[in-house]
Amino acid sequence: MTPVTSGLWHKLIAFQVYGANTGVGKTVACTVLGKAFRTHYPDWQINYLKPVSTGPASDADDKYVKRYTGHRAECIFQFSDPVSPHIAAHIEPPSDQQVLGRVSEELFKHAKSIKPKGEYGITMVETAGGVLSPAPSGSLQADLYRPLRLPVILIGDHRLGGIAATISAFESLTVRGYDVEAVMIFESGNLGNTGYLMKFFKTHKLPIFELPALPPAGDVSKIQESMASYYKHVSQQRDISRLAQLLVNRHFIRLKDLERMASKANSVIWHPFTQHKDRTDSSILAFDSAYGDFFQTYSSQLPAGYDFISEESTPTQNNTSLLQPAFDGSASWWTQGLGHGNPELSLAAAYAAGRYGHVMFAGAIHQPALSIANKMLQGLENPRLQKVFFSDNGSTGIEVAIKMALKASSIRYGWEPGSKDIGILGLKGSYHGDTIGAMDCSEPSTYNEKVEWYHGRGYWFDFPQVKMRKGVWVVEPPPGMETEFGQPRSFKNLDEIFDFEARDSLKYESYIEGVLNWLIKSGGRKFGALVIEPVLLGAGGMLFVDPLFQRTLVNVVRKSNLFYSPSKQPFIPLDETGDASSMWTGLPVVFDEVFTGLYRLGRFSSASFLKVHPDISVHAKLLTGGLLPLCTTLASQSIFDAFLSDDKTDALLHGHSYTAHAIGCHVANVSLNKMEKLEMGKSWQNYQKSWQIPVSSSTVTWSMWSKETVTALSHNEQVDAVIALGSVLAISLHDESGSAGYTSDVANHLRDALLYESHGHKWIVHSRVLGNVLYLMASMTTDCETISAVENSLLAKLKDVGNSPKGS
Amino acid sequence: MTPVTSGLWHKLIAFQVYGANTGVGKTVACTVLGKAFRTHYPDWQINYLKPVSTGPASDADDKYVKRYTGHRAECIFQFSDPVSPHIAAHIEPPSDQQVLGRVSEELFKHAKSIKPKGEYGITMVETAGGVLSPAPSGSLQADLYRPLRLPVILIGDHRLGGIAATISAFESLTVRGYDVEAVMIFESGNLGNTGYLMKFFKTHKLPIFELPALPPAGDVSKIQESMASYYKHVSQQRDISRLAQLLVNRHFIRLKDLERMASKANSVIWHPFTQHKDRTDSSILAFDSAYGDFFQTYSSQLPAGYDFISEESTPTQNNTSLLQPAFDGSASWWTQGLGHGNPELSLAAAYAAGRYGHVMFAGAIHQPALSIANKMLQGLENPRLQKVFFSDNGSTGIEVAIKMALKASSIRYGWEPGSKDIGILGLKGSYHGDTIGAMDCSEPSTYNEKVEWYHGRGYWFDFPQVKMRKGVWVVEPPPGMETEFGQPRSFKNLDEIFDFEARDSLKYESYIEGVLNWLIKSGGRKFGALVIEPVLLGAGGMLFVDPLFQRTLVNVVRKSNLFYSPSKQPFIPLDETGDASSMWTGLPVVFDEVFTGLYRLGRFSSASFLKVHPDISVHAKLLTGGLLPLCTTLASQSIFDAFLSDDKTDALLHGHSYTAHAIGCHVANVSLNKMEKLEMGKSWQNYQKSWQIPVSSSTVTWSMWSKETVTALSHNEQVDAVIALGSVLAISLHDESGSAGYTSDVANHLRDALLYESHGHKWIVHSRVLGNVLYLMASMTTDCETISAVENSLLAKLKDVGNSPKGS
Repeated sequence: MTPVTSGLWHKLIAFQVYGANTGVGKTVACTVLGKAFRTHYPDWQINYLKPVSTGPASDADDKYVKRYTGHRAECIFQFSDPVSPHIAAHIEPPSDQQVLGRVSEELFKHAKSIKPKGEYGITMVETAGGVLSPAPSGSLQADLYRPLRLPVILIGDHRLGGIAATISAFESLTVRGYDVEAVMIFESGNLGNTGYLMKFFKTHKLPIFELPALPPAGDVSKIQESMASYYKHVSQQRDISRLAQLLVNRHFIRLKDLERMASKANSVIWHPFTQHKDRTDSSILAFDSAYGDFFQTYSSQLPAGYDFISEESTPTQNNTSLLQPAFDGSASWWTQGLGHGNPELSLAAAYAAGRYGHVMFAGAIHQPALSIANKMLQGLENPRLQKVFFSDNGSTGIEVAIKMALKASSIRYGWEPGSKDIGILGLKGSYHGDTIGAMDCSEPSTYNEKVEWYHGRGYWFDFPQVKMRKGVWVVEPPPGMETEFGQPRSFKNLDEIFDFEARDSLKYESYIEGVLNWLIKSGGRKFGALVIEPVLLGAGGMLFVDPLFQRTLVNVVRKSNLFYSPSKQPFIPLDETGDASSMWTGLPVVFDEVFTGLYRLGRFSSASFLKVHPDISVHAKLLTGGLLPLCTTLASQSIFDAFLSDDKTDALLHGHSYTAHAIGCHVANVSLNKMEKLEMGKSWQNYQKSWQIPVSSSTVTWSMWSKETVTALSHNEQVDAVIALGSVLAISLHDESGSAGYTSDVANHLRDALLYESHGHKWIVHSRVLGNVLYLMASMTTDCETISAVENSLLAKLKDVGNSPKGS
Repeated sequence: MTPVTSGLWHKLIAFQVYGANTGVGKTVACTVLGKAFRTHYPDWQINYLKPVSTGPASDADDKYVKRYTGHRAECIFQFSDPVSPHIAAHIEPPSDQQVLGRVSEELFKHAKSIKPKGEYGITMVETAGGVLSPAPSGSLQADLYRPLRLPVILIGDHRLGGIAATISAFESLTVRGYDVEAVMIFESGNLGNTGYLMKFFKTHKLPIFELPALPPAGDVSKIQESMASYYKHVSQQRDISRLAQLLVNRHFIRLKDLERMASKANSVIWHPFTQHKDRTDSSILAFDSAYGDFFQTYSSQLPAGYDFISEESTPTQNNTSLLQPAFDGSASWWTQGLGHGNPELSLAAAYAAGRYGHVMFAGAIHQPALSIANKMLQGLENPRLQKVFFSDNGSTGIEVAIKMALKASSIRYGWEPGSKDIGILGLKGSYHGDTIGAMDCSEPSTYNEKVEWYHGRGYWFDFPQVKMRKGVWVVEPPPGMETEFGQPRSFKNLDEIFDFEARDSLKYESYIEGVLNWLIKSGGRKFGALVIEPVLLGAGGMLFVDPLFQRTLVNVVRKSNLFYSPSKQPFIPLDETGDASSMWTGLPVVFDEVFTGLYRLGRFSSASFLKVHPDISVHAKLLTGGLLPLCTTLASQSIFDAFLSDDKTDALLHGHSYTAHAIGCHVANVSLNKMEKLEMGKSWQNYQKSWQIPVSSSTVTWSMWSKETVTALSHNEQVDAVIALGSVLAISLHDESGSAGYTSDVANHLRDALLYESHGHKWIVHSRVLGNVLYLMASMTTDCETISAVENSLLAKLKDVGNSPKGS
């Protein structure tokens, strides 16, 4: 699992010493600094830690530092070969998690050993070799230590070529999200490295400190003496003094910034989707950073409404960590796929920024845009889709889709250009975005009716839902609609629900046909598109729609001749033969895969679950692996052709300034490649095993959340039902009192309980709630161990919440 | 000026050899490669070029390479001190432009000297020191050569620490948008550098080639002999052979990709704002990359409709460059501010990606978001604004602003929640974005009336415009509205127009009051906001609104008591005293500064020209310096307070998944800091001088486009009028025939003419047209020399177009 730890304490000032290259004097610099700290802070604990050292133990850096400073100095992993750790440790090398775990333990020990009264501690963690030298496991050292994200002192290279080496090392640290606090460098004589770097790093507000050259080697017997005198002299130099104080000050500035961040945010930030009347400083989580599946949250902040104090929870103390790793259980609003702080995506973003910046896209093309367009067309395996339009997010992508679909219908059915009375067909509980056009695609509800310009345009069908209850998958009609949809029905497994050939869709067909007849023939309504989220309605409350119903809805709409008046028979080309053709029939079918697509449910396309091909398909969120906004709306040729005309104003007049921005497109290419590799590779097989049905050769459904836990959850007495598909787990809690308010309190309580450290974990779970539903979402790279730990936490907290006095 | 050049030819295969550090064997590698090329391509020209060399000339690398290969080998700048070029060249160092210019010349020479029949050429350009070693000027070498963006061969470091050095060097090249094609590295014995790097670079699909260690130094007299034998042996090794062929193949793959990019785009891309009926392969520009103010466009592509063949234009030949630098004259759809491929922004993007990725923003805060919120609040110097809301682009930012304003009005004036009949007040020709809510803020026009769900909601005022005609600034009423607005009036300079105290606004006041009276009292209309683009209406055709009219409109709306029915006197707190208060009166005033703000017109805020403070302000485009999408909507406390309630559904229910994404926010902070520095520094003073009015101590207006050129343009007989403010220049061409179609042809012809190389420039100008208006937009870093060259090109092309047979 991702090594989970954090590197910030109130009283322990820890930082990491990286070298611009090997042999640049990291240990000497640590010794100088150690002595300088001692001078300024005589009562503090000063520690030196060398996690990985190669070469003879007698020669090791910890002994050296101890000799000249007298500080506590330790080396954790010692390998006798004087080569790179990944070679020295070739037999049973410690894993990254082991190294990081041990470093973390040591730091916690240092923090704990600080006496409460007035005393502080400092720990210097010296790395081995250069910034990107391999760790024992072979990982790049700067990647291994990244979860700690300790402030960095970079030891520059004072030799010929050292300017380049120092700046490149700085850039490699920066790309990984490290904060470099200062550069130390030995005097370089006429090479002028210090002077150049001083000027260069000014733009980055990075101070640089020069160390005098070491005394000449001379008589071996006197080397200790001359070094002792060097250290005494240098550690008292004015600028080294200044550096020691600066590093301490920077620590307290960082603490103060973190401490104030929430209250400052409370005064200037208008948060999305938030009723601010109840917002307080302490209701805002301050993120220092994030790595892998975890946020690093400032931990003095606990949810205001929390009222289950379990025995394990411990109050924040001066010597416990100020950063609390929190599992990103909403996948950062459903976007996250490849882990926070992913260095590969970071470098990809930088490459596209460096090669292009943003280049205007009207009448133009660049490689990243062309590549992602082709990748989307290929990945969706939908022969209808031929053209790719770019925008910035799911909401704008849906606006584009709606403009496309309605124009195509208008032209086919001969409606006035710009007809205002065309609606869409959809499902109840749909959600397509926050801009007015996207909002208008959802039925009126308490959440949009108060928006002045909102005007729901369409009709939204009721539908049967898939749920697991007490270990059994069922398909249930909405309450009171058993006549229309049939009685609730149990299935042996999810695959059976997706086995459309074995199921009967007649009841659904006649219901849908009946409704359409009533709407159009009796109601005189006009419709221009069918717009649905395949399989799972996200914001509506993680509603798992019976896939057979969605499939049937598409098929009925496509076969129907209700959408045009008989007097205006449209021209439909003869080769129209359904799914295989690129020509739409009935209404253009729009799939909003913004949430469900691109591996969120375990597959490139969520339409593939339904085995139907939409005419328009919208993709965002996971498109960039969770890094930045980008959206693609794909359309069939026949949709595209509807906009061809001699009149410029018949074109699709849509296009944001950053349309197809190179950074987004390139990151999307790299992300999709990575996710494709994960699909092809073995990392998901462990999850899949738990859901595999031995007798079936065509298992189609699986989840990263284990069948065992999902089943256990479904048996919990507080749980009404559960669903799990791909990376999504959603738990509907019982509405015992029958009042929505109370219900949503229960989900909120579970959410808040998950925010408390307990049950021996060093981290907490950050989740989001939709009404009475608490959901969790993994990234595509979350490992089994993490998932299993989150599951355990969830089961335990559910028990805690269950045992607590209700309504307290 | 930005060194403008390009590095791609059909028949010359040029690449650049960078070292992971100094002393890694770049010259030896070039010699090996040179000999390998000779073996495989015996008839080709093989060239070696060392732009900058330090150390004794007799020892220089060009002589060395020539000795062992016999190829043409040359060194351009030779400095005798064996130190870094920036020190060696301390007296009168050549500028970056000089170095790049000379390299470019040499490459062009090499390309030209290739015989037409069957022959090709190869040039290896060897750099000095490491990737980021300083050039003679002190710039980082990889930045200096970036405009050429030659494919790179990176020579890895085979020594201890070399793994880190090689990967960091690779990352520094990647951050700058270079394509590294291969790594060469000397055998490193038991250090295992090659093996590690081979595995590591596999993820980047980067092949790595090992060179055997050099023969031992031994007898000095025999060194040449043993080296000769080394070269002979190594250059014929199988994998070096493979490398030589691979580099040649990669060149042809790059050519093929570029050549096919437009046609592939034509088949899969749906371009924004484009009528595709006329789109052909050749109407799509293929961008290889971009740097500073220039695109690198694939130059075989010329606009299909071009029909002015001037004598200077030369057809693309095999030995002329395939990449044509094109001045980005639309600032990439008005976004560009700090140059394409800006390494500082690139690193900033990578840092935020590395530190956070994207972290969910609901109920959360991170430093980049907090910083940019505060920076916006401070920069706007508008005491009303207190809260910052994030979204992804100008269109969504306007939707947010509208939701804010209408809710505030509804509550103040006691309208039903969600009233559908509320309109906005605006100006004719406004444009606020492409999503339905933003579209609805503009009056019906041919450009939106055909969109099915568009429904213009509001009233849009006519207004007088500012223009320069024949060297004189005038304020003109719309045709036929002299009674309402007065006769056209001349002003001595722009500053006079902005001198509101000296001007009389009575006519404007009574006109606006009259219209409001008519709309509301007679028409029964209801309005919820005033929404305007301060100073310049962009998409409407670069219309320069008389600022006095906009100012008056705001003041009249704020003073008016027409917006609520007298029977429903709203509660307005007593301390309401106009501009200084944070409380809105009349209607909430929304300023759309998406285009005009953040230095586009030379100032942080375009509202500051009008000397009024809006209640809501929207900012995007330049916010990230031109890198990626981000938008902020700022609001006053009284707007914010309108959403406070005990009911969650009274909140502003808006929020995109990537709301306040860390990359955008951090890049925005870095960009705004840089632009602020430009404002404070001296770089804009040269532009300002040309517009300064000696007698006035309070010059408020200036442009990057020189007064001389703007005046000259305004006298041109094809020009109707001109405007210039900040980085914007817009030229309205005469509509001689009176038909809009013909008119827009003239602007299109000028645009196409600018796409042709001529008048001794090595680059062209890419511009965009709005109807009969051709505009040009600089970035905030465009230097005087570039501006002046673009101006000259514009004047010359205008003459060309004028002299050509009309309508041809």
